[in-house]
Amino acid sequence: MIPVQEALAEIKRGAEEILVESEFVEKLEKGKPLRIKAGFDPTAPDLHLGHTVLLNKLKQFQDLGHEILFLIGDFTGMIGDPTGKNVTRKPLTPEQVQENAKSYQEQVFKILDPEKTQVVFNSHWMNKLSSADMIRLASNHTVARMLERDDFSKRYAGGQAIAIHEFLYPLIQGYDSVELDADVELGGTDQKFNLLMGRELQKAYGKPQQTILTMPILEGLDGVQKMSKSLGNYIGINDSPKDIFGKLMSISDELMWRYIDLLSFRNINDIQQWKDEVAAGKNPIEIKKDFAVEIVARFHSDEAGVEARQGFENQFKKGQIPDDIDEVTLDVGGDGIAIANLLKDSGLTVSTSEALRMIKQGAVKSDGEKVLDKNLKITAGEEHIFQVGKRKFAKVSTR
Amino acid sequence: MIPVQEALAEIKRGAEEILVESEFVEKLEKGKPLRIKAGFDPTAPDLHLGHTVLLNKLKQFQDLGHEILFLIGDFTGMIGDPTGKNVTRKPLTPEQVQENAKSYQEQVFKILDPEKTQVVFNSHWMNKLSSADMIRLASNHTVARMLERDDFSKRYAGGQAIAIHEFLYPLIQGYDSVELDADVELGGTDQKFNLLMGRELQKAYGKPQQTILTMPILEGLDGVQKMSKSLGNYIGINDSPKDIFGKLMSISDELMWRYIDLLSFRNINDIQQWKDEVAAGKNPIEIKKDFAVEIVARFHSDEAGVEARQGFENQFKKGQIPDDIDEVTLDVGGDGIAIANLLKDSGLTVSTSEALRMIKQGAVKSDGEKVLDKNLKITAGEEHIFQVGKRKFAKVSTR
Repeated sequence: MIPVQEALAEIKRGAEEILVESEFVEKLEKGKPLRIKAGFDPTAPDLHLGHTVLLNKLKQFQDLGHEILFLIGDFTGMIGDPTGKNVTRKPLTPEQVQENAKSYQEQVFKILDPEKTQVVFNSHWMNKLSSADMIRLASNHTVARMLERDDFSKRYAGGQAIAIHEFLYPLIQGYDSVELDADVELGGTDQKFNLLMGRELQKAYGKPQQTILTMPILEGLDGVQKMSKSLGNYIGINDSPKDIFGKLMSISDELMWRYIDLLSFRNINDIQQWKDEVAAGKNPIEIKKDFAVEIVARFHSDEAGVEARQGFENQFKKGQIPDDIDEVTLDVGGDGIAIANLLKDSGLTVSTSEALRMIKQGAVKSDGEKVLDKNLKITAGEEHIFQVGKRKFAKVSTR
Repeated sequence: MIPVQEALAEIKRGAEEILVESEFVEKLEKGKPLRIKAGFDPTAPDLHLGHTVLLNKLKQFQDLGHEILFLIGDFTGMIGDPTGKNVTRKPLTPEQVQENAKSYQEQVFKILDPEKTQVVFNSHWMNKLSSADMIRLASNHTVARMLERDDFSKRYAGGQAIAIHEFLYPLIQGYDSVELDADVELGGTDQKFNLLMGRELQKAYGKPQQTILTMPILEGLDGVQKMSKSLGNYIGINDSPKDIFGKLMSISDELMWRYIDLLSFRNINDIQQWKDEVAAGKNPIEIKKDFAVEIVARFHSDEAGVEARQGFENQFKKGQIPDDIDEVTLDVGGDGIAIANLLKDSGLTVSTSEALRMIKQGAVKSDGEKVLDKNLKITAGEEHIFQVGKRKFAKVSTR
């Protein structure tokens, strides 16, 4: 294991808050693998980059030699919405939970090391709790303190109903830490209240208290609301390379830095250098592309990253093609047609010699890609958009 | 069974509120025995007259042919105070619960008919509830509505802690009605919130809703606070005849009417007559005595009632005897002594003829009771306080 101060610096990177840091340092100093808890919803997962902020931090803990407890909160999932009002929260069957867990693993193991990840289900201990145990659990917290939780206080003040069982859910989440003997629990900043519950309950049940570590919430593509599937402002980790790349390229320059801070694995110095370059006048789009390549590569492959970039660049350039483009169909026969003849016949150049000269100047493009080979042959049955210079376009079909 | 309207009038007597009366009438009209629930604390019972207000109403239901479900809330009793803060609420063992139940029965069967009383324990079903069942139960009520309960709203407003499990207790109490299929639940006016919870939960669980009937809370001997053992202002149903009688005689004339309304079994016309008599100038103390005799007789025997009255009257009159009373010892021999001679020999009259005259006038008392028999003989070995007229007293021992 690396020195404690070094490990601490790594862990603090990008983290919002560590409570209590001095206790955490003590835990690290013991030099033993820590039990790192993170809880996940048991509904069908469709992980997006927002989730990976946390997953990346878990990965970092793994790389530092610690054990990840990937907790699937299936107990409440199997209850569903007990009021029956929320039809989208139907009770999950044990089979659905297992299916979703499998889907989770397929996705998270793109980031986490399966060897160092223990997937646990809280139904395992919660199903054993009696109604009397639930009462004892509930006795560990007061109504007033529960109403301090941000969402509860807003709903209460706004006259929106809070069903009493909703007060039990944070307690259950906290009790999971008791059962798991968690040393550290990770969550988004919006989970701070629940994470602290784990600390309190561990104390109440006579156990050492977990350190809590909160990670910032990633904004969605709009740069305003949190990334979420239901808001449609997300990049799924199962998205195609093309989609990941394209969506990342669509974000504002300002949001780009936020994404880089929270998602890039590049070291801090490299990122600082990028910032300096942009400050000195470099177009941020180039940095955005480099970053997008990194993210595509993470969920697909290095090759996919490079290809996505090329595809995007082509696509991007196609995007500049005028709407009222000429459409030409050429009969080329079995031998096909040479590029210079094609350009002339479709009216893009007045002669084959002009066509050859323009190719030599790099002023001819096919589907956004420069045509460098003056001997290029186009066969029957193809369709491409050809461009000569900045303004001349034609969509050419061969037959 | 008696006609519905007659039964309704009986049941309404002394009751604070019936919700919903029209539903209740429908239930009565079915002409079948109804299931009448009343819940009791599982701690060691020491029932007082305050409790009997409710018990008397239950008795009335019994007399009308209905079935009493005497519910002992042992489930929460066996949990005790889960916060551990209230040391007086230690968890009860199942043995203690049984012991207390036995003690309850000994006391309540002074009023209720054991044959028509089913004693039930809510641990019977609550212990079978899982933690998931508790969550479902809790989902049936909102935090805001729970905080409307009088004591909760006061504590919340006053910044006093309410532990979350306290929100579960009214739900459990209500759920008991679901399990018991209660048709009617009785309780004090302070229980209205909890009784209504039973109605709501029965509906939520798809069952017919119970009628609730609240009884007034009996004030203690002080006439201000509710009767309670801890306040010391109570009359226990296990108190001695002398104590019951004496305590009842100590209450104010105003409180007397309240007690009579809530505790006497006399019919309404008789009570009205009493009121009329007092309005016409009769000393209320005589009515108080009649009422006290009725109550002593209820928990002991008719004879005990009469004795208690005599004892009280003697005691009361003794209270008027001067402290510096003459003490006289008379040698009466084997034949004893005639009352007239005793009065003369002890110096209370100057002659036996004066003594006989005074007896005739009703001016002679022995231990506060008028001596009416001029031939009364006092044997050796007795001791009485004799009074002649208003002022002459002597304590006379015979030997």
